[in-house]
Amino acid sequence: MSLTQIQRMPTGCPGLDHVLAGGFPTGRSTLLSGTAGSGKTVLALQFLHDGVRDYDQRGVFLTFEERPEQLRANAASLGFDIAGMEEQGTWAFVDASYHPDRDEQQVGPFDFGALLLRLRHAVESVGATRVALDSVGAVFTRYQDATVVRRELMRVTDLLRELGVTAIVTSERAEEYGQIGRHGVEEFVCDNVLVLRNALEQETRRRTIEVLKMRGVDHLTGEFPFTIVPQSGIVVITLENTALNAPSADER
Amino acid sequence: MSLTQIQRMPTGCPGLDHVLAGGFPTGRSTLLSGTAGSGKTVLALQFLHDGVRDYDQRGVFLTFEERPEQLRANAASLGFDIAGMEEQGTWAFVDASYHPDRDEQQVGPFDFGALLLRLRHAVESVGATRVALDSVGAVFTRYQDATVVRRELMRVTDLLRELGVTAIVTSERAEEYGQIGRHGVEEFVCDNVLVLRNALEQETRRRTIEVLKMRGVDHLTGEFPFTIVPQSGIVVITLENTALNAPSADER
Amino acid sequence: MSLTQIQRMPTGCPGLDHVLAGGFPTGRSTLLSGTAGSGKTVLALQFLHDGVRDYDQRGVFLTFEERPEQLRANAASLGFDIAGMEEQGTWAFVDASYHPDRDEQQVGPFDFGALLLRLRHAVESVGATRVALDSVGAVFTRYQDATVVRRELMRVTDLLRELGVTAIVTSERAEEYGQIGRHGVEEFVCDNVLVLRNALEQETRRRTIEVLKMRGVDHLTGEFPFTIVPQSGIVVITLENTALNAPSADER
Amino acid sequence: MSLTQIQRMPTGCPGLDHVLAGGFPTGRSTLLSGTAGSGKTVLALQFLHDGVRDYDQRGVFLTFEERPEQLRANAASLGFDIAGMEEQGTWAFVDASYHPDRDEQQVGPFDFGALLLRLRHAVESVGATRVALDSVGAVFTRYQDATVVRRELMRVTDLLRELGVTAIVTSERAEEYGQIGRHGVEEFVCDNVLVLRNALEQETRRRTIEVLKMRGVDHLTGEFPFTIVPQSGIVVITLENTALNAPSADER
Amino acid sequence: MSLTQIQRMPTGCPGLDHVLAGGFPTGRSTLLSGTAGSGKTVLALQFLHDGVRDYDQRGVFLTFEERPEQLRANAASLGFDIAGMEEQGTWAFVDASYHPDRDEQQVGPFDFGALLLRLRHAVESVGATRVALDSVGAVFTRYQDATVVRRELMRVTDLLRELGVTAIVTSERAEEYGQIGRHGVEEFVCDNVLVLRNALEQETRRRTIEVLKMRGVDHLTGEFPFTIVPQSGIVVITLENTALNAPSADER
Amino acid sequence: MSLTQIQRMPTGCPGLDHVLAGGFPTGRSTLLSGTAGSGKTVLALQFLHDGVRDYDQRGVFLTFEERPEQLRANAASLGFDIAGMEEQGTWAFVDASYHPDRDEQQVGPFDFGALLLRLRHAVESVGATRVALDSVGAVFTRYQDATVVRRELMRVTDLLRELGVTAIVTSERAEEYGQIGRHGVEEFVCDNVLVLRNALEQETRRRTIEVLKMRGVDHLTGEFPFTIVPQSGIVVITLENTALNAPSADER
Ligand SMILES: Nc1ncnc2c1ncn2[C@@H]1O[C@H](COP(=O)(O)OP(=O)(O)OP(=O)(O)O)[C@@H](O)[C@H]1O
Ligand SMILES: Nc1ncnc2c1ncn2[C@@H]1O[C@H](COP(=O)(O)OP(=O)(O)OP(=O)(O)O)[C@@H](O)[C@H]1O
Ligand SMILES: Nc1ncnc2c1ncn2[C@@H]1O[C@H](COP(=O)(O)OP(=O)(O)OP(=O)(O)O)[C@@H](O)[C@H]1O
Ligand SMILES: Nc1ncnc2c1ncn2[C@@H]1O[C@H](COP(=O)(O)OP(=O)(O)OP(=O)(O)O)[C@@H](O)[C@H]1O
Ligand SMILES: Nc1ncnc2c1ncn2[C@@H]1O[C@H](COP(=O)(O)OP(=O)(O)OP(=O)(O)O)[C@@H](O)[C@H]1O
Ligand SMILES: Nc1ncnc2c1ncn2[C@@H]1O[C@H](COP(=O)(O)OP(=O)(O)OP(=O)(O)O)[C@@H](O)[C@H]1O
Ligand SMILES: [Mg+2]
Ligand SMILES: [Mg+2]
Ligand SMILES: [Mg+2]
Ligand SMILES: [Mg+2]
Ligand SMILES: [Mg+2]
Ligand SMILES: [Mg+2]
Repeated sequence: MSLTQIQRMPTGCPGLDHVLAGGFPTGRSTLLSGTAGSGKTVLALQFLHDGVRDYDQRGVFLTFEERPEQLRANAASLGFDIAGMEEQGTWAFVDASYHPDRDEQQVGPFDFGALLLRLRHAVESVGATRVALDSVGAVFTRYQDATVVRRELMRVTDLLRELGVTAIVTSERAEEYGQIGRHGVEEFVCDNVLVLRNALEQETRRRTIEVLKMRGVDHLTGEFPFTIVPQSGIVVITLENTALNAPSADER
Repeated sequence: MSLTQIQRMPTGCPGLDHVLAGGFPTGRSTLLSGTAGSGKTVLALQFLHDGVRDYDQRGVFLTFEERPEQLRANAASLGFDIAGMEEQGTWAFVDASYHPDRDEQQVGPFDFGALLLRLRHAVESVGATRVALDSVGAVFTRYQDATVVRRELMRVTDLLRELGVTAIVTSERAEEYGQIGRHGVEEFVCDNVLVLRNALEQETRRRTIEVLKMRGVDHLTGEFPFTIVPQSGIVVITLENTALNAPSADER
Repeated sequence: MSLTQIQRMPTGCPGLDHVLAGGFPTGRSTLLSGTAGSGKTVLALQFLHDGVRDYDQRGVFLTFEERPEQLRANAASLGFDIAGMEEQGTWAFVDASYHPDRDEQQVGPFDFGALLLRLRHAVESVGATRVALDSVGAVFTRYQDATVVRRELMRVTDLLRELGVTAIVTSERAEEYGQIGRHGVEEFVCDNVLVLRNALEQETRRRTIEVLKMRGVDHLTGEFPFTIVPQSGIVVITLENTALNAPSADER
Repeated sequence: MSLTQIQRMPTGCPGLDHVLAGGFPTGRSTLLSGTAGSGKTVLALQFLHDGVRDYDQRGVFLTFEERPEQLRANAASLGFDIAGMEEQGTWAFVDASYHPDRDEQQVGPFDFGALLLRLRHAVESVGATRVALDSVGAVFTRYQDATVVRRELMRVTDLLRELGVTAIVTSERAEEYGQIGRHGVEEFVCDNVLVLRNALEQETRRRTIEVLKMRGVDHLTGEFPFTIVPQSGIVVITLENTALNAPSADER
Repeated sequence: MSLTQIQRMPTGCPGLDHVLAGGFPTGRSTLLSGTAGSGKTVLALQFLHDGVRDYDQRGVFLTFEERPEQLRANAASLGFDIAGMEEQGTWAFVDASYHPDRDEQQVGPFDFGALLLRLRHAVESVGATRVALDSVGAVFTRYQDATVVRRELMRVTDLLRELGVTAIVTSERAEEYGQIGRHGVEEFVCDNVLVLRNALEQETRRRTIEVLKMRGVDHLTGEFPFTIVPQSGIVVITLENTALNAPSADER
Repeated sequence: MSLTQIQRMPTGCPGLDHVLAGGFPTGRSTLLSGTAGSGKTVLALQFLHDGVRDYDQRGVFLTFEERPEQLRANAASLGFDIAGMEEQGTWAFVDASYHPDRDEQQVGPFDFGALLLRLRHAVESVGATRVALDSVGAVFTRYQDATVVRRELMRVTDLLRELGVTAIVTSERAEEYGQIGRHGVEEFVCDNVLVLRNALEQETRRRTIEVLKMRGVDHLTGEFPFTIVPQSGIVVITLENTALNAPSADER
């Protein structure tokens, strides 16, 4: 009996790959859920950036809220030269952010169909294997009904699977603990779920990352602390990389 | 006075059978409730897989969310060769997962009637004695009204009883503790209820399984820890199997 | 001054009669509220069964959810030969359980009137003095409005009083502590309220029974632990029966 | 300057009069709020009973839920001979309890106007100075709107003030702590509010009585334990009566 | 640079003036929020009473719930001779309390406009500089919509500012901690907010007063205990007055 | 590779600039969320005032609730001479506060469009680089729908970005901990979020300021205590300024 196993795509961030036990499941989407400022966008940028830089894998970043120019500036503070990659044709933005003058009439249900066509086009033009959607929360606020959220999210992950890309889909949550997604269904629909936390303990904040679920693969469980380092990005702290940096017993 | 007792169907997982005090009540359904990633699908797959492998009992797996090809891949990571069983005719999928292109119009109440016909057909074709429905939560999100959930769940368990199969019906819950089912009625309708938990304690996760109720039979009570082992599946830890593995007092 | 006191009907379960300070108030109904699997049906079966066996009092069991054949099987696991009693004419079921094929159209308000007629008929045919209704929760889920629940419950207890029977009416609650009835009014309408709990403490379950209120009579207060013993049923643990079983001080 | 002070009406229950610092404010209503079985009806019965027996003050008891015959039986268990008082013309019931056959159509807003006329008539016929309304909760369940509850409760207390009687108005609450009245407004409308609690601590119940507010008079604050004694009724435990019963230091 | 500072109006209650760091901001309104029986009406009466007695400042008391005759009686218990002041023309009531016979039809939105006219007239007739509105909660219960509460409260404080009076506006809250106003907006609209608490700790009650905010002025922060003393009223306990009453170190 | 970094605008408050690691991101808006009385208006006033005084940067203050004359008086208590600055043409108010007589009909959705035109005009007339909007909460109370809040807030921040100003936008929250914005979406829309807290601990209040998120820049994390000093304003306490005031090690 020889069964085909699910492949992994290393992210490029050593600590994170350790927690993921190798990387994201190739060809599948991962939901990245977190409160405001928890680091969702930073992680999404870094996943694509490192793909281009370290693995020659191109990226498409679909943004629902921040404008591409803002994302470029924010990424610059992490040392990521997105503009440069855009010029090289290894990175493309799909801009689905809200433009008051242009999108004035947009109150009804969001037209995901048209957007997914634009996404498909960008992925094919760039030849992308990594994709980020940041954040579907901006769109899902419109839906009262969990059934609609469920269906639309399924539609999105379905297209991403069809495109054969490995994707990060960010989503919002209002509190650090309790229900994962805002509508209480997001975490069930997706194959893989990561949670970013920025918890207030006493008077200090503590950032952690956790793999809540990854269907069909092994992974580390529980919360792992991380920091966001200027000119670098997210650095996940695991026993392994702590060990690497610590002086070995012999040296003492 | 000689009274006919309810029979048990061993699952094939030793720890679990110990907790169940013999196995699932034969010919009845068991509700398996748990949060996202708690192991519902793994347990459902394993129940059917072990039935085929160890007891020559065939299985039908009705899936509401994950596609059969995904389930095959995920099962492969647990060492379960589903495709092989499908070829042998001992396993069949009923695919009720959402296909955006095909099911576009599906927003109203779910048509359980048609689906149950397909299920009946599959069970009869395969000659199945074990059945899994994973997960009714995907469908029940649509219902606002607990009365409808109650009635539909009853309709499902009614058919399963009529088919004479022993079944696992998985259902979603958003939090590890408190109310069992999402609508607060699921646990009353079903004869048997198991709860899978994946609780965050300090910064680590702890998986447990518990028999909340099993009508008309004895069972162990309380939470029992378990792990999901690559190439094996769920391993429930009870004093019994701990004792088996621990060195005996004499040996020390 | 000589005032007529409320009479008691011993249940047949020694521990429970001790907690009730004699038994249920004769000719009145008692609400039995508990979570799924807390033992409501077991206690209701046992109350009727012991009445037939020990006091020559006949019983009618009105079931809203489980089918009579299931109840017979479940009762058998407790050593109760219901079928035998049915044959002797000392026990009768009124089957108000849901039959999908038959009751398809039933979504509007439940027709309690017709059902109560059937109940009256059964009580008179059998000559019953003990009655169980299990569980009104299955029907009350339909009502959004607490006023309707209040009125219907009053209608039920009114008929039961008129019939002169001593009755147990079971009802659902979603959590072990807090509000007694699902609609927050059930416990006010009824003369007597018992609560069954199956609380999760650390990782183990603990079953208790408590008399929340019994109008016009004395009773023990607080929670008393109980167990469900195969081939026996509910055994309530009180200091008294503990004392009986424990070796006396002299013997040591 | 000589200002007219609010008079007190001793209840007849020594412990309670101590907590009330003399008794209920004469000519005003007191709201008695408590969970099911907390002792509201017992206290209301006792207030009227002791008035007749000890102070030659007659009483009218308006009942919304329990039937007069039930109340007579329940009172008998406390040693109160209500039937005797009814015969002497010192006690009268106004029966506003629900009669399914008679009151079938009653679903709309309750007609308080007609009822208050009956109450006025009874008060005047009997020459009552003490009145009990037990419990307005049975009627207020019908109102979704706190404004209506507020207005109706005001209408009731207004009539009671006009009649010149000193009254107890009982009302329901679902939980022992938190919000006083079910609609969150009852405690604001009334001049005086007493709370009866029957709290579960560990596994035992503890009954307490508390004066939440009494406008324009002094009173003891905080919770005082009480018990319900067969053939006696409510006995409030205060330092004072504890002291009376305890042997003095000299005697030891 | 010389900037005009906000003036203070001493209340007459020494402890309170200490907490307020001088008194209420002159010409502005202060919201007084508290649970039932927390002392709102006592404080409002005392503020006006002390103004008349100690500072020759006249008062108008607009009452939404209690009738003037009741307020006079209640005030008498605190040693306040309101009737005397009314005779002297230094105190006037505006009676906006509910009269069932008169105000039967009043269910729609409250007509604040007409009432404010009556208030203006009273203030001008009496020549009042201190005003109390007790309590707007009685009226705001009618509004579902926080926007309406916000607007009406603004309308009230606007008129009070225009009249040039220094006012106390009382409002209801259902719980001692958490959200300040019932609608969650009251505390934002008002310039100054005081909170009265009557918290249950173990089995005793503890009264405290706190300045939650006072725009544009300094004040003490945190909770200060107070008591309501018969024939005196509210006595706030601060370190200062504790010090005054305690024997100095030298004397011991 | 040379990437353009986001510039900082020092606030003028040393402690705050330290927490912000330099100041607010230039040309972007910062959401300032806090409970009633937490210091939002004081900080907004101070940000503009210090800009005029210390950096020759002009300011426009758009007020939704407090009238300009009140703000001038309140600012005076902090030693800020706003009237003087208005005369010099370095400060302008845009008055969007509610005027009952004028704005009677205003119940529908707020017309942000017209207001933003007035804001643009003021900014251009004054030549402002610093802007405050205090508080959008007053307007957002009207919206039930989080989608509308999201869109309107985006519209506001969009205009502010287009105007090239650095802005503080204040918003309300009802509780010190938990969800940041009232509608649970405000914190996601904005690039930068500051939280002011005024938490009750035991019986005292403790004010803190925290940077919840600042996209694309580094900042200190966690809560920093601050006080509001008469004639000065907000003083944030950090280790740095504590160190400055403490005697150095050498001096001891
Ligand atoms: N260059 C940087 N140096 C240090 N920290 C940074 C840098 N850039 C961003 N951060 C940190 O990352 C946070 C923003 O993270 P990010 O934008 O990824 O959050 P998010 O989860 O996407 O939030 P939102 O839901 O609000 O978009 C900032 O608040 C800051 O604390
Ligand atoms: N091959 C494997 N090796 C180790 N762990 C695995 C393996 N496959 C699955 N798991 C674990 O099982 C979890 C998935 O379990 P499963 O899919 O049964 O959850 P579920 O309860 O069905 O969740 P959902 O409601 O989201 O479908 C994964 O998150 C992973 O932790
Ligand atoms: N023969 C038996 N031996 C031991 N325990 C039993 C036996 N029969 C039932 N039980 C126990 O009783 C529980 C079922 O109790 P019961 O059916 O009375 O619950 P219930 O309160 O009526 O629940 P529901 O609301 O779901 O109907 C089972 O979960 C099991 O733990
Ligand atoms: N004769 C008695 N001897 C001892 N205890 C009694 C006696 N009569 C009543 N009780 C106690 O008083 C309780 C009933 O109190 P009561 O009927 O006053 O409650 P209640 O607050 O009116 O409840 P409800 O809201 O359900 O009407 C009983 O549950 C019982 O514990
Ligand atoms: N003369 C008095 N002597 C002692 N305490 C008194 C006296 N008068 C009133 N009190 C106390 O004050 C309380 C009533 O306070 P008050 O009427 O001011 O409350 P409130 O906050 O206005 O409540 P509500 O919202 O119900 O009107 C009484 O419950 C009592 O405890
Ligand atoms: N001159 C002053 N001296 C000392 N403290 C002051 C002074 N002015 C204001 N304060 C303090 O600041 C608080 C008001 O702060 P501010 O008006 O900024 O709150 P806010 O967050 O805007 O509240 P709101 O949402 O109610 O408008 C006052 O309650 C007071 O404690
Ligand atoms: Mg983001
Ligand atoms: Mg699953
Ligand atoms: Mg049952
Ligand atoms: Mg009662
Ligand atoms: Mg009051
Ligand atoms: Mg403000």
